[in-house]
Amino acid sequence: MRIALVLEYDGSRYCGWQSQPQGCSIQDTLEATLSKIAQEKIRIITAGRTDTGVHALYQVVHFDTSAQRPVSAWIRGVNALLPNDIAILWAAEVSGKFHARYSAVERRYIYLLLNQPVRPGLNNNKVGWYHHPLQLEQMQSAGAILVGEHDFSAFRAAECQAKSPVRTITRLTISRQENLFVFELCANAFLHHMVRNIIGCLVYIGKGKYSVEWMHALLDSCNRTYAAPTFSPAGLYLAGVKYDADWRMPEFSQLSVIPGLSIHN
Amino acid sequence: MRIALVLEYDGSRYCGWQSQPQGCSIQDTLEATLSKIAQEKIRIITAGRTDTGVHALYQVVHFDTSAQRPVSAWIRGVNALLPNDIAILWAAEVSGKFHARYSAVERRYIYLLLNQPVRPGLNNNKVGWYHHPLQLEQMQSAGAILVGEHDFSAFRAAECQAKSPVRTITRLTISRQENLFVFELCANAFLHHMVRNIIGCLVYIGKGKYSVEWMHALLDSCNRTYAAPTFSPAGLYLAGVKYDADWRMPEFSQLSVIPGLSIHN
Repeated sequence: MRIALVLEYDGSRYCGWQSQPQGCSIQDTLEATLSKIAQEKIRIITAGRTDTGVHALYQVVHFDTSAQRPVSAWIRGVNALLPNDIAILWAAEVSGKFHARYSAVERRYIYLLLNQPVRPGLNNNKVGWYHHPLQLEQMQSAGAILVGEHDFSAFRAAECQAKSPVRTITRLTISRQENLFVFELCANAFLHHMVRNIIGCLVYIGKGKYSVEWMHALLDSCNRTYAAPTFSPAGLYLAGVKYDADWRMPEFSQLSVIPGLSIHN
Repeated sequence: MRIALVLEYDGSRYCGWQSQPQGCSIQDTLEATLSKIAQEKIRIITAGRTDTGVHALYQVVHFDTSAQRPVSAWIRGVNALLPNDIAILWAAEVSGKFHARYSAVERRYIYLLLNQPVRPGLNNNKVGWYHHPLQLEQMQSAGAILVGEHDFSAFRAAECQAKSPVRTITRLTISRQENLFVFELCANAFLHHMVRNIIGCLVYIGKGKYSVEWMHALLDSCNRTYAAPTFSPAGLYLAGVKYDADWRMPEFSQLSVIPGLSIHN
């Protein structure tokens, strides 16, 4: 049978999502724990492979198993064995046709950027930080340029394995809560490092290094070497994966929140 | 000369504020760093000694030094040498009569309690967690009983060194943001474990184990053995220290926020 899980994690301690020979990834940790509960080797498929240091508020995986377990075993049983910085939020048996990656129609990422002269001491692994003042309106105008279907080669890591650089951004909003900028990006899918490269470019514009128009030129150039450096992973959260309603996956808002942060649903 | 500092820290990795022989405390770490910058041995006095695992959004210390340094050295210079989970937010030379502990007229603590069936994976060191549903109104009514000047012996740790168990709580509010309860407590000063013991008792009432009236009886009993166990340190933040305006210390709200959390100022 096929089981789907929704989980959240703090990526600070891990070498990213994807399985590594040294076993330091979130995938390795989760597969080892699920295999203990199932008493057989479990391999998982994920909706999105997050980078080293990137967090998830709502990550989706599926796996196939012959083990008959109540849903509580896949939630509380697994949570009892997982390290404290990974938690299963939801589990259900799903159709064998459901696929965590290929059935997903939209991914949502949130980036939290602390904008103050001094570096953070409290949430240093959970927020990006920039010391010079940033102009919200400039960044909002530049962000709007990226919404829609585009060739995002200018924001694509050299090691990106995607066949096509074309993606559709359905939402890119930036809001400010005190000294915290909250970026929200939704797309059908994202290229490797795409969100962090976009954040880096928006910061360039927010601090006045380049004008809003530069974003047009950069997007059109399809040239990664013109863009800003990849921004820190610390503030990045995989915050939702959307599926057709037929799959009956839970709403993001029912599961996980960043304490106190109001996020569009 | 006397220097005052405001700092924030993530207490997860430390054995609390107070200096320990094994040097694992926040005080040890900060004194070692300040001593390097000052090129002489620095001893600091703090407004409030936080427990193991307790965080600070706004902690105040002072120290005396013969070292002549620009303010930026006490902020950016110290931050460059401190570990990432401690940061100086503000520094100034102050009168020799200012005392971080004795000049303080009010301390403010915030407790973040996640109330959902599954344990957190993302903010596990930054929030307390309770799995059964809690009734906000019941906790608010019980909390109101504690406001004012009282003998708080029922909420005092056995190892508490305070001369008197009488304290004045000037504010105790509880609000709910989605699945997060935010407790805010202000008092002239707090006894050892007082906030965490109060949270434990409010949770007892919130889950329906005891009625609101029990809080009256408990307070009047002055007997710690009747109270709930000390609640987890993970959700506790020293969130402000108030001084007379003459001392010109910065407002809490100008310095530090929990990302996205709206807190009364």
